[in-house]
Amino acid sequence: MTPKVSPLAPSEYATLPQVGGVRLAAASAGLKYRDRDDVMVMVFDRPAAIAGVLTRSRCPSAPVDWCRANLPGGAARVLVVNSGNANAFTGKRGAAATALTAQMAADAAGCERGEVFLSSTGVIGEPLEAARFDGILQQAIGRAQPEGWDAAARAIMTTDTFPKLATRTAAVDGMAVTLNGIAKGSGMIAPDMATMLAYIVTDAPVAAPLLQALLNRHVNATFNAITVDGDTSTSDTVLAFATGVAEIPALTDLDDPRLAPFEAALADLMGDLALQIVRDGEGVSKLMRVDISGAISDESARIIALSIANSPLVKTALAGGDANWGRVVMAVGKAGEPADRDRLDIRFGDLVAATDGERAPDYDEAAMTDYMRGDEIRIAVDLNLGEGAFTAWGCDLTADYVAINADYRS
Amino acid sequence: MTPKVSPLAPSEYATLPQVGGVRLAAASAGLKYRDRDDVMVMVFDRPAAIAGVLTRSRCPSAPVDWCRANLPGGAARVLVVNSGNANAFTGKRGAAATALTAQMAADAAGCERGEVFLSSTGVIGEPLEAARFDGILQQAIGRAQPEGWDAAARAIMTTDTFPKLATRTAAVDGMAVTLNGIAKGSGMIAPDMATMLAYIVTDAPVAAPLLQALLNRHVNATFNAITVDGDTSTSDTVLAFATGVAEIPALTDLDDPRLAPFEAALADLMGDLALQIVRDGEGVSKLMRVDISGAISDESARIIALSIANSPLVKTALAGGDANWGRVVMAVGKAGEPADRDRLDIRFGDLVAATDGERAPDYDEAAMTDYMRGDEIRIAVDLNLGEGAFTAWGCDLTADYVAINADYRS
Repeated sequence: MTPKVSPLAPSEYATLPQVGGVRLAAASAGLKYRDRDDVMVMVFDRPAAIAGVLTRSRCPSAPVDWCRANLPGGAARVLVVNSGNANAFTGKRGAAATALTAQMAADAAGCERGEVFLSSTGVIGEPLEAARFDGILQQAIGRAQPEGWDAAARAIMTTDTFPKLATRTAAVDGMAVTLNGIAKGSGMIAPDMATMLAYIVTDAPVAAPLLQALLNRHVNATFNAITVDGDTSTSDTVLAFATGVAEIPALTDLDDPRLAPFEAALADLMGDLALQIVRDGEGVSKLMRVDISGAISDESARIIALSIANSPLVKTALAGGDANWGRVVMAVGKAGEPADRDRLDIRFGDLVAATDGERAPDYDEAAMTDYMRGDEIRIAVDLNLGEGAFTAWGCDLTADYVAINADYRS
Repeated sequence: MTPKVSPLAPSEYATLPQVGGVRLAAASAGLKYRDRDDVMVMVFDRPAAIAGVLTRSRCPSAPVDWCRANLPGGAARVLVVNSGNANAFTGKRGAAATALTAQMAADAAGCERGEVFLSSTGVIGEPLEAARFDGILQQAIGRAQPEGWDAAARAIMTTDTFPKLATRTAAVDGMAVTLNGIAKGSGMIAPDMATMLAYIVTDAPVAAPLLQALLNRHVNATFNAITVDGDTSTSDTVLAFATGVAEIPALTDLDDPRLAPFEAALADLMGDLALQIVRDGEGVSKLMRVDISGAISDESARIIALSIANSPLVKTALAGGDANWGRVVMAVGKAGEPADRDRLDIRFGDLVAATDGERAPDYDEAAMTDYMRGDEIRIAVDLNLGEGAFTAWGCDLTADYVAINADYRS
């Protein structure tokens, strides 16, 4: 199956500038794909500060274990990511494969294994033959270039139909710093080939603990606010690297007033990458934005928003262009969070579907049907109970999703 | 869309015998459907003991509110169920519609409104014009007959492709008592037209509190162990009635040694009806049985079993005949319950897919592919941590599910 590009793909892909201190390369190890790259490396000539957020799956992949063990060190010299094989549920052989890969990378870069970070995405349960990387990895590390972003983003694609790239700049201390990011994923998050991976690199001198704090602060409203099918990968990984090449005094403190523009740019970049993943949701034809307000807390709003965005019946209604607000009520009800049926207000776009727990008096089916023809649908629910709010992003559920995932492995 | 009968439908529908003390009738009120019945009544000439389990949705339908208010009374004279309109999210008009319907039924049967029980299934958010029942209800209650089971089961169908009927007998005190049940549903549980409704009637003299205790004890492994899409209806209702016509001393105590055969028959009947609902899952082509063992508790096993049975990726793999055990690992991991990746054993049918956290040494792809061609697939996961066990029932996710639910309302 050769998937066509998602109809919701951006009209242009971002062109990423160089970021001082990082070089990239892509290569082909022939793990699964033919005629395309399936490995990428990022090389940091001086140790970069690193922070990360990893899957909460109780059955994580071997590379996730590897990253979790190395993150406390706070320093990165090499990142190696392969597509085609997730090295997940591969037992002791999986751990051995990560160790061997890291050793090859460390030898080639002249660093410690503790400074090597790894991700794998692809089929679960197939042993990863790390020996295939031998020679290829060393060669890629040697020839990595500052302009390798696009090739790197393409090498980590699996069921993705377009590469995911984003860049931002921020003025810190009167100096422009750059933030680049690449990501892959077309499910939030599917295990086989739709794992979410994202890598962000900045030349700003951000200390590792601060970078981690910033990542934690913004991951909830970005990468954790998207869903394609509610399935959580064994391999989900978001890593952020700060090379510190920009010549400004180091950022180490959350209270540093210089931090605000950098933090804003980082949050914006994370949101951009996250949304690109939804826009490449498997089989997607419509983007769904769910705005919850009036919940008893932000956390309660988050649970309700994801209950709606993950509901197969809301998602199929979207696919059919049906403003089926009854299914939205159902999804609010099943979330288990405080909700008063008779106080719910529900809108699609700016059109009021229901108010005070029943169909709006001026409900206009024709206007609603017209709105539902669009490819970006906003569902807003006001619970009228409190101040809690959250926005989640999802997509519709189409016959193409079924076709992609029913055919996938074989 | 005229749905064909589910390929997993039973080859024969059960023929239900009469149960002393209950009469049934079906009628057409023209709420939504043409050329078919859309209302059914059950009439108990003497008050029957009643017990019930209702949806946990925070946004229940008006008839659910009605039943919840009347259940503590413990006595039923009439049950009225309509299809085509769920009377859910209809605000004050919804409550008024239930009150009017109950009043008409009470007047016709010569009983109190508190002895009338109601269910509605169909579109959400459309006001139910209870005035349409006027005359029809009274006439149906008058002509109800002991042999009306099949017509009643058909009148409550919505997206169901076959009527769901089951019967059992049990010897209590040397006397045969009968248990009949009918149900509807083809999602566990979809809101619009796939709500799960089930009604069980026995002539055994079971006191209401005991009947409730038995229902509570067995609902978890039956009606709450099935899933089609993980969506919970605003209207799910299971009611059990005991007419007490069988001439044996009343059953009132859980410790009564005469109870065992009755309880076994009841549990078996509930399981039978529940499984018929899954077999009519929207778009279903394969039945999925998920057996979890070795969890730290039965509750933990239940959460893991439903995580697997509800996973869109496991369900699409099934649709594709793919023994994708990697997706099973994913679903175990995302459940959030204690699991040790490296101790998992996974089987499809009797074939071992994975053991000790990696692909089984003697994994046989050809045998597995052959097994996956069947229409009843058993996925067994042993967590090897404790004694907790649970069995859930689900089905695959097909393009037909999407088509049914994308087209439904319009």
